[in-house]
Amino acid sequence: MNTTPLYRQLANHYLDAIRSGTLKTGERFPSIRLMMEKHAVSLSTAVQICRELEDYGVLEARPRSGNYIRQPDTPARPAPLALPPPLDAEAYVGIHQQVSSVLKASQRATIKVNFASAYCAPQLYPLKTLQDNMLRTLRQDPHLLDTAGSTCGHIALRNILARRALTTKTHLTAERIVITNGATEAINLALRAVTRPGDTVAVESPTFYGLLQILESLNLRVLEVPASPHSGINLLALEQLLLGPERIKALIVIPNLHNPLGSIMPDANKARLVQLCAGHDTVLIEDDTYGDLVETEHPLSTLKHWDRTDSLIYCASLNKTLAPGVRLGWISAGKWHERVEMLKHTQSHGCEALSQLAVSAYMGTPSYERYLRRLRKTLTLQRQHMSEAIQRYFPQGTSVTNPRGGTLLWVELPREYSSMALFHEALKVGILISPGDIFSNARRFGHFVRIGCGAPYSPRIDEALRTLGQMLKRPS
Amino acid sequence: MNTTPLYRQLANHYLDAIRSGTLKTGERFPSIRLMMEKHAVSLSTAVQICRELEDYGVLEARPRSGNYIRQPDTPARPAPLALPPPLDAEAYVGIHQQVSSVLKASQRATIKVNFASAYCAPQLYPLKTLQDNMLRTLRQDPHLLDTAGSTCGHIALRNILARRALTTKTHLTAERIVITNGATEAINLALRAVTRPGDTVAVESPTFYGLLQILESLNLRVLEVPASPHSGINLLALEQLLLGPERIKALIVIPNLHNPLGSIMPDANKARLVQLCAGHDTVLIEDDTYGDLVETEHPLSTLKHWDRTDSLIYCASLNKTLAPGVRLGWISAGKWHERVEMLKHTQSHGCEALSQLAVSAYMGTPSYERYLRRLRKTLTLQRQHMSEAIQRYFPQGTSVTNPRGGTLLWVELPREYSSMALFHEALKVGILISPGDIFSNARRFGHFVRIGCGAPYSPRIDEALRTLGQMLKRPS
Repeated sequence: MNTTPLYRQLANHYLDAIRSGTLKTGERFPSIRLMMEKHAVSLSTAVQICRELEDYGVLEARPRSGNYIRQPDTPARPAPLALPPPLDAEAYVGIHQQVSSVLKASQRATIKVNFASAYCAPQLYPLKTLQDNMLRTLRQDPHLLDTAGSTCGHIALRNILARRALTTKTHLTAERIVITNGATEAINLALRAVTRPGDTVAVESPTFYGLLQILESLNLRVLEVPASPHSGINLLALEQLLLGPERIKALIVIPNLHNPLGSIMPDANKARLVQLCAGHDTVLIEDDTYGDLVETEHPLSTLKHWDRTDSLIYCASLNKTLAPGVRLGWISAGKWHERVEMLKHTQSHGCEALSQLAVSAYMGTPSYERYLRRLRKTLTLQRQHMSEAIQRYFPQGTSVTNPRGGTLLWVELPREYSSMALFHEALKVGILISPGDIFSNARRFGHFVRIGCGAPYSPRIDEALRTLGQMLKRPS
Repeated sequence: MNTTPLYRQLANHYLDAIRSGTLKTGERFPSIRLMMEKHAVSLSTAVQICRELEDYGVLEARPRSGNYIRQPDTPARPAPLALPPPLDAEAYVGIHQQVSSVLKASQRATIKVNFASAYCAPQLYPLKTLQDNMLRTLRQDPHLLDTAGSTCGHIALRNILARRALTTKTHLTAERIVITNGATEAINLALRAVTRPGDTVAVESPTFYGLLQILESLNLRVLEVPASPHSGINLLALEQLLLGPERIKALIVIPNLHNPLGSIMPDANKARLVQLCAGHDTVLIEDDTYGDLVETEHPLSTLKHWDRTDSLIYCASLNKTLAPGVRLGWISAGKWHERVEMLKHTQSHGCEALSQLAVSAYMGTPSYERYLRRLRKTLTLQRQHMSEAIQRYFPQGTSVTNPRGGTLLWVELPREYSSMALFHEALKVGILISPGDIFSNARRFGHFVRIGCGAPYSPRIDEALRTLGQMLKRPS
């Protein structure tokens, strides 16, 4: 039995036709309607086929005209069929320096408008409630300060996290959750548990620069797998990589609301990804930091939901959804739990109990769910306003992602632009952006910008986006 | 010019005499008075010579009779002249398992009297003041929860730590201090900054088991250097090791109130140790967690004070002196600062601000110094009571250290006893002790017990010590 989903079988069929020259560059691609008839498939399958081919970079949609075959290796997207060349460790060392030079330049400047933050504006967080909960917890529990916290964290919080995970069909056992200092420590522990320095780890390309910094600090070799805003990591490219000569010890994936792509992997892809990794003995590390920010009527699944071998490591954090000042993440490491617990113990012992208890008291109430719903709605509005303004002010040929949640837009400028040049110019007038370069070591995103939409839309933000647009349009 | 201190030159002179057989086992050693005359040295130098020889295990003091030459390699002390055999990585792996099996057995039991804790009893800590400071900070500072803390920690706390360090003649620069999740994370970062897996790191033998666990978790090879309750690490043994074939990348030393020995290194030894390590390009990592608990009229120096090359890494913590529930440590890494900052950023980002600010508010007042003075006095009383009771109840031949501060006594039972057997037997009746085995991987401390004196002396404690004594005396 062929377990490859139908849409992917058909996408492969078209890929072969393009590779062999049966379908040529510039040629019009069969319409959705035609494909539905020809292959007797549903509308959604036909759409999925086109998206898949778009992700591979072989198809381009022209407004009011249809889909056309295009050169597959356009540098405007992650190289689709050819894998990125494996980077050697020496070449890799340096992303931290690049990232921190960007961060340090930002710290030296006086920032008026910050588009580089992935956080929401302070007023969107339930800070008063949290503060009240903390005050109450602090007054009520006299043993908070006189007892050292347990390595795995407070059981009250672990219970709530396990219960909440059910909303994403994720089965976590409270006793096997370890509370960490943010998702950063969680990912760190996951990597330390399953790799040794010099091992190779794969990530999505682009991906959150913080992950690249962690990998560099642990002396891990990194391979970047192309990913798209539509469906996340490119599974064909990943499969090719896993079949290749290099042993991939682990793969870090942000399946729901990828940073910076905003992608949400379809369920079929999630299932296939978990299966692929299990089959190649590659430990899948899931970063679910943004999952709670997805705006959807149907609950999403996590990768963990599809894990049948208890070998996936699930990491998440409250840092983005609840409050930037609360450094609480967690890790559920399946069969690696004992090793992760040992590493947590020797790395930093247990986290302080106060914020764990205060947060538990809040997350256990229905008002937490209400807060999340409100937050998601607000963010959707903010993303829409920002996206419209970017399209209004930025040069023709700019494209903006349309994620189903979160605070981030991934903006592709026409490829002659340099986002690093824009970063430096904008900084001079107090506008902070995240240049695409820091999201990969493969130098493929030099004309991308990540724009944070955490703040309510305002004349000041509008003005700042207009300024960015003017900077781009001015001949340099 | 011979830079070896006079007392050590003379100790070496006697060691040669013992080795060559000029002085024989069982023979009486020259009296202090005789040595003063013979070598024209002061009383303190003569005493120092005897202590040095005691530390090497070649001299034993018999009450009311004087000092006698003894077999140098008695297993009752760290092997003195012969170095511990280098342990290979495979042999080493396992200390964590041993330690955690001890810790887990403790957690399963119902503990009535806990002698295994290095903390003070809750009522000795200024918990009310801390709680009040936290409540005030939380009410006053609305941005605590809405801003992510900076990687290096809050500058208010770093300023106070730098200012307080002056009391131990230690020059720290606030801007180059990084606040950590306890000393555990500080040591972790120090080791990650200067070693790679497979490197060799030296430690004192015995030493705090937590350090051994950290080393194991980082896949570091460990060499143990004999240390004594009088003067800490044996510098001759260390020198031999540094001159040996194995490259020692780093050395972790607890110079003031060693855990478990209670030793305080004399200034001359501190200076020499720093010089030795600098000369062999071995990074010295100083753990000063217990320094504030030393009861002394003259301020102590740290190793950092003697560092002329900015290559020593200083680590400390408020966890034992201020409150077990406050997980704040710090690291001042000298020339390794940038690397440590990077590792802290990628390991766990900045620590939460609340406890940093609350603690700063307290540590900046004179009442903090008053609290420390009171705490030291109380602990001295508690140690005295405990020590007397141990000598009253434990078998003849038991010896107890007499540290100048802190909460810990290191108890040497006659060598036919097994502290691990005692641990298990005591646990059955709810008494918790730390068996000597977990403080080394060299199986030299199986008849030692670490006893915590953090709690005020009471009939219950007296009774528990009596029970331990009876267990030991009962024929097994």
